[in-house]
Amino acid sequence: MPEIGPAEPWIVREIGAPAEQDGALLQGESVFALANGHVGLRGNLEEPHPGGMPGTFLNSLYEERDLQYPEEGYGFPEQTQTIVNGPNGKRIALYVDGESFDLRTGEVRRHERVLDLRAGTLTREVEWVSPGGAEVWLRTERLVSFVRPSVAALRYSVRADAELRIESDLVVDEELPSPREDDPRASAILQDPFEPISHDDDQLVCRTRRSDISVAAAVTHTGADGTVSSTPELIRWVTTGRGEITFEKFLAYHWPATDDAVTDRDAAARDGFDVLAREQRDYLDDFWAGADVEVDGDPDIQQAVRFGLFHVLQAGAQAGPHPIPAKGLTGNGYDGHTLWDTESYVLRTLTYTHPGCVGPALKWRHNTLDHARERARELKLDGAAFPWRTISGPECSGYWPAGTAALHVNADIADAVLRYHAATGDDEFMREAGDELLSETAKLWKSVAYFDDEGVAHIAGVTGPDEYTALMDDNIYTNLMAEQNLRAAGVDLRLNIPYAENRQVHEQAAGFTRLPEWDFTDDDYPLMLSHHYLNLYRKQVVKQADVVLAMMVRGDAFTTEQKRRNFAYYEARTVRDSSLSAPIQAVLAAELGHLTLAHDYLAEAALLDLRSGGESGGDGLHIAACAGAWISLVMGFGGLRDHGGALSFRPRLPPGLTRLSFHVHWRGSKLCVTITRDTVSYTADGEVTFRHEGDEVRVRAGEELKFAVDPIDDIPAPPSPRPPRRHSLSA
Amino acid sequence: MPEIGPAEPWIVREIGAPAEQDGALLQGESVFALANGHVGLRGNLEEPHPGGMPGTFLNSLYEERDLQYPEEGYGFPEQTQTIVNGPNGKRIALYVDGESFDLRTGEVRRHERVLDLRAGTLTREVEWVSPGGAEVWLRTERLVSFVRPSVAALRYSVRADAELRIESDLVVDEELPSPREDDPRASAILQDPFEPISHDDDQLVCRTRRSDISVAAAVTHTGADGTVSSTPELIRWVTTGRGEITFEKFLAYHWPATDDAVTDRDAAARDGFDVLAREQRDYLDDFWAGADVEVDGDPDIQQAVRFGLFHVLQAGAQAGPHPIPAKGLTGNGYDGHTLWDTESYVLRTLTYTHPGCVGPALKWRHNTLDHARERARELKLDGAAFPWRTISGPECSGYWPAGTAALHVNADIADAVLRYHAATGDDEFMREAGDELLSETAKLWKSVAYFDDEGVAHIAGVTGPDEYTALMDDNIYTNLMAEQNLRAAGVDLRLNIPYAENRQVHEQAAGFTRLPEWDFTDDDYPLMLSHHYLNLYRKQVVKQADVVLAMMVRGDAFTTEQKRRNFAYYEARTVRDSSLSAPIQAVLAAELGHLTLAHDYLAEAALLDLRSGGESGGDGLHIAACAGAWISLVMGFGGLRDHGGALSFRPRLPPGLTRLSFHVHWRGSKLCVTITRDTVSYTADGEVTFRHEGDEVRVRAGEELKFAVDPIDDIPAPPSPRPPRRHSLSA
Repeated sequence: MPEIGPAEPWIVREIGAPAEQDGALLQGESVFALANGHVGLRGNLEEPHPGGMPGTFLNSLYEERDLQYPEEGYGFPEQTQTIVNGPNGKRIALYVDGESFDLRTGEVRRHERVLDLRAGTLTREVEWVSPGGAEVWLRTERLVSFVRPSVAALRYSVRADAELRIESDLVVDEELPSPREDDPRASAILQDPFEPISHDDDQLVCRTRRSDISVAAAVTHTGADGTVSSTPELIRWVTTGRGEITFEKFLAYHWPATDDAVTDRDAAARDGFDVLAREQRDYLDDFWAGADVEVDGDPDIQQAVRFGLFHVLQAGAQAGPHPIPAKGLTGNGYDGHTLWDTESYVLRTLTYTHPGCVGPALKWRHNTLDHARERARELKLDGAAFPWRTISGPECSGYWPAGTAALHVNADIADAVLRYHAATGDDEFMREAGDELLSETAKLWKSVAYFDDEGVAHIAGVTGPDEYTALMDDNIYTNLMAEQNLRAAGVDLRLNIPYAENRQVHEQAAGFTRLPEWDFTDDDYPLMLSHHYLNLYRKQVVKQADVVLAMMVRGDAFTTEQKRRNFAYYEARTVRDSSLSAPIQAVLAAELGHLTLAHDYLAEAALLDLRSGGESGGDGLHIAACAGAWISLVMGFGGLRDHGGALSFRPRLPPGLTRLSFHVHWRGSKLCVTITRDTVSYTADGEVTFRHEGDEVRVRAGEELKFAVDPIDDIPAPPSPRPPRRHSLSA
Repeated sequence: MPEIGPAEPWIVREIGAPAEQDGALLQGESVFALANGHVGLRGNLEEPHPGGMPGTFLNSLYEERDLQYPEEGYGFPEQTQTIVNGPNGKRIALYVDGESFDLRTGEVRRHERVLDLRAGTLTREVEWVSPGGAEVWLRTERLVSFVRPSVAALRYSVRADAELRIESDLVVDEELPSPREDDPRASAILQDPFEPISHDDDQLVCRTRRSDISVAAAVTHTGADGTVSSTPELIRWVTTGRGEITFEKFLAYHWPATDDAVTDRDAAARDGFDVLAREQRDYLDDFWAGADVEVDGDPDIQQAVRFGLFHVLQAGAQAGPHPIPAKGLTGNGYDGHTLWDTESYVLRTLTYTHPGCVGPALKWRHNTLDHARERARELKLDGAAFPWRTISGPECSGYWPAGTAALHVNADIADAVLRYHAATGDDEFMREAGDELLSETAKLWKSVAYFDDEGVAHIAGVTGPDEYTALMDDNIYTNLMAEQNLRAAGVDLRLNIPYAENRQVHEQAAGFTRLPEWDFTDDDYPLMLSHHYLNLYRKQVVKQADVVLAMMVRGDAFTTEQKRRNFAYYEARTVRDSSLSAPIQAVLAAELGHLTLAHDYLAEAALLDLRSGGESGGDGLHIAACAGAWISLVMGFGGLRDHGGALSFRPRLPPGLTRLSFHVHWRGSKLCVTITRDTVSYTADGEVTFRHEGDEVRVRAGEELKFAVDPIDDIPAPPSPRPPRRHSLSA
């Protein structure tokens, strides 16, 4: 039985009880996670299930742990931070005539979960017959409020001709399953991270043992009579009855702990679930009015891009002073760390769809400047060296060749600052944070770059986004991004852009095209699980193509002919073992006229978490890939570019799509772009100036600009060792 | 008070009680370690002293422990091996009128330890007044028999006008101090590695808990009456008396455990200490007759080269089927691992001074071929990939860029095989082990090398001996050594030798001379303790100079003018943070006529462990640097080379030396070379053919070949950021 049902435009539906095998249970927990960027509830079943991975993630509520190295080195981080499972208020156990409601027993006649992308709710309906023969109907609804950052709410209804007993909990330090031993990337899980501070029937207050972050978690129940008891680690509300029971449950979290948890909970309970749900829908109506992407011709993609945008919003909406982690608040993958893809993928998308949460996300980086300055000093560099992975700011990467050496993260932050400012004109943000981020990162690059005997500037010994190549000179992506970073800070420095004359292509890094070729026969992906870095690094095999990414972000630095030759060259050597790869391949494929290939890469990116059947998302969704669906469509088929802070489009639809419509926020206005097979129309709610196919045009509120789209040939895909995979419903 | 007294030709003398401060106690334990390559007793004081590091090292008696990585990777070793402190039979506690003999109490009137390099014994004499006023005279002697590999012996004499009580122990799992937190290179120490198997008054039998190696340790005492008792972890012999007590103590170890421990102990006890001491002297007389180096003009160097040779012998003599660790059996540094310097430094010296123990050492490598083949398969390479660090064969390196990536270890092993065969003509060894070592390592290189578009062969992405540069292409040392390795296996493949036209020097690796220069102002050495590898790797700063080493080992691949330019270039960029560096600098400095510089580098290498005042040798001596003293003198001022398996000399003395005489074993004969300011004479006990100053000559038994030595100018040293340091007695 498929875990996720056929594509519906605004709904993600799971049909049948989620199976523990093949990771479908865990994958479903990620897909059905609800969050507002501040509080995240993983899509756990209400009743306890040992195969699940409980997750109540409070942004930046982390514990510290020591890192151990077989061989120490100067500047190797000594501690890391790991997101912890906060006090769980989702847990509701049901007993029917004394028998525990458990999908692994009795008979499941119907089980359906629905994530409504417009309502912002998760609904579950179950018809179950207990081992003792009682027929049970159950419906639950959940939301994590976009409007009230601290608040989550549940509504629970059960009906059965039996004695019912419900134990509804708020529990600290619940037992977690062991981490997945088979995947080194799976997160380390901290058991028992809290020590209790106080408890009563209203709230539990506890604190992480080492990082010393206090949490107040408040809970209350309405709609049915019950009795409450509390211990330092548990508030349990118990209600019993026969026939039907319906109640609402309200949760509120504050960390560090304040009395506001109880206040917020009380306000939510007073207003009730229906009011919270109406607020939620209003918030989302507003979001979708400015962010929705309509895709005609491929229902899977239509659903997936909305699913992606919804999760991007859930990751970023109220992240506020905290970061947006790589997994959002949907799982503990990457230990809950934030990496470069927040700026390069998630904020890129949010800048044009929901810019209001981009400034705060970049201010979080600004708030960590002291850590970054200290790290730069530790590395004997100037300015700021932002961490490869972190929660609160210090470097948490334990493998420096693909961590500390990836200095490009600093230029990626600068790039996000520039993009946000160009798109919004938010000068106050620049004064408060943006300018300093630009100047401190520029200082770093000035201290890293050097001139050779011929006066050519270089950056030696760094790692680009491609993690199958490390510690090379003149990484092309790094150099082009550093150049832009420096220019934005008033420093005009041309860095060497490596080019292989004999192959007539740009080099990912100096000498890259002279390395041995990879033998692509008989390889299991991801290669990193069966090949030593020694083997990967010294060959022309690419996890995600730095040159292709450079050609998207710094497309102004390449001619079309160069792009064509480069794309074909790296396409033949790129295995996309990173989920960050496919969206960028899609964008350049579209630009270069490989339209079906672009569509296929779009599908690989967009359907990864929805359709891959638990392959990879059990420890949290790939939020950057969620953003990647938007990037593929809007930057690929819409041809959106923003080089030098100027907005431009080159629309082109692949054969498989009949219409694409999307919105772009630009300097306070919303531009709506609608592309069909032969026309493109631009409308806006204010004046927007941009380039269409290279020509500067302007659209005013109420006007429609309409252009014919010249049909272009769909150029066949160049050879690839691993053509795009379209994840689909199991055959 | 200095810990080591003024230089004496055949004696290393410590005057005064070793101070715990500044590491002098630990350093003394290493300097005064006795070993025969099979069993090693660190120079611990007999009485328990909490500041010391007890060490009874039984070659390859190791425990396993898991390696933890902050971020795992395919092929990262999951376990490592660590040498453990075996059952300690050195411990003898003395009570004088009930007061414990302890140098930290009472008054030390005299304390002297003497390591006699001809006798192979350590003698200690103490005059001590107890806190209660009793005057005590104590003398101990120790040896670890070169002739009886399992046996060690002590003689203990004490005199005092007081009630004496002696507790003489054989103890398992004695308490160890904590590892040194400040130095990441210090070894991890395993507490409590043994579980008992059996015990009686004759022997303790125990076994390492995880590696499951059983040990039988037998002990007996003669010369005084005493009572014995035993527990699973202790055999204690107690004697009491007044006035004077003298006794002898005999130890024997077998691992895996057999009854031979008791048998060997009984034989030793029957023969008595004096017989063992005579055997020891006979063995050493024979050794020195073929290995001694006489140096006139620099008494410190005279002492140091003998001290070095003695410890090289102690590391290798009876290593037999086990390896020769980097620290010999003098300490637990590097976890007791064997690295490439065994082949490249220690076996180089032993081949010409004591060749009988070189074949077994290389057979140990051969015995580990299955591990090396498995590792090659794991790395997707052919043939054998020997480990960077190991005890019994599996790769134990936990930092792969300076471990697994240093493939040159394989060519170093092949080089040692070729040298040993050229010097001895031991064809049987080649049939049994040598040929297969050559062919399996050659297979590795064939699978690593590749051809570029122009048909030039390269080796990409490896690390040479210089650990301040990593993962570069065409490391010059690696390529030249691999070329030789391949040629010896019948494969003629020219690998690219990187050369910088604009600077007219060879490059350590492709592109090295184009990297940024290091800022040498205000640096603390070693740089690795205050600089991140990111900083070190991407700049022209060299820990030990690969190009200079290549010019020694593969001197036939360079012209003299190239050597001169290369030497000056790398001299200006080499900081010698590795003790392996100075001897090689000395050799090339001598060849190029920088004679005083060569002398100074010789002194830096030779006096490192004897005169550096506990700076570095507390966890064991640098056995390769011990060999380096010989290398500096014989290859530097003797000008010995063996390119292509042919022996040659180009003698030249530095201004500070008046005479140098040394022996070289060559195809069953001993060649004696004596160099004065104006002549060199060659004598031999058989026929030896070699080149003198480029001309082939032959010397027969009883003949003396004598040549005038043309005086050469002492060319001033080229600039260096860190001129050689001559460790000396504290001023």
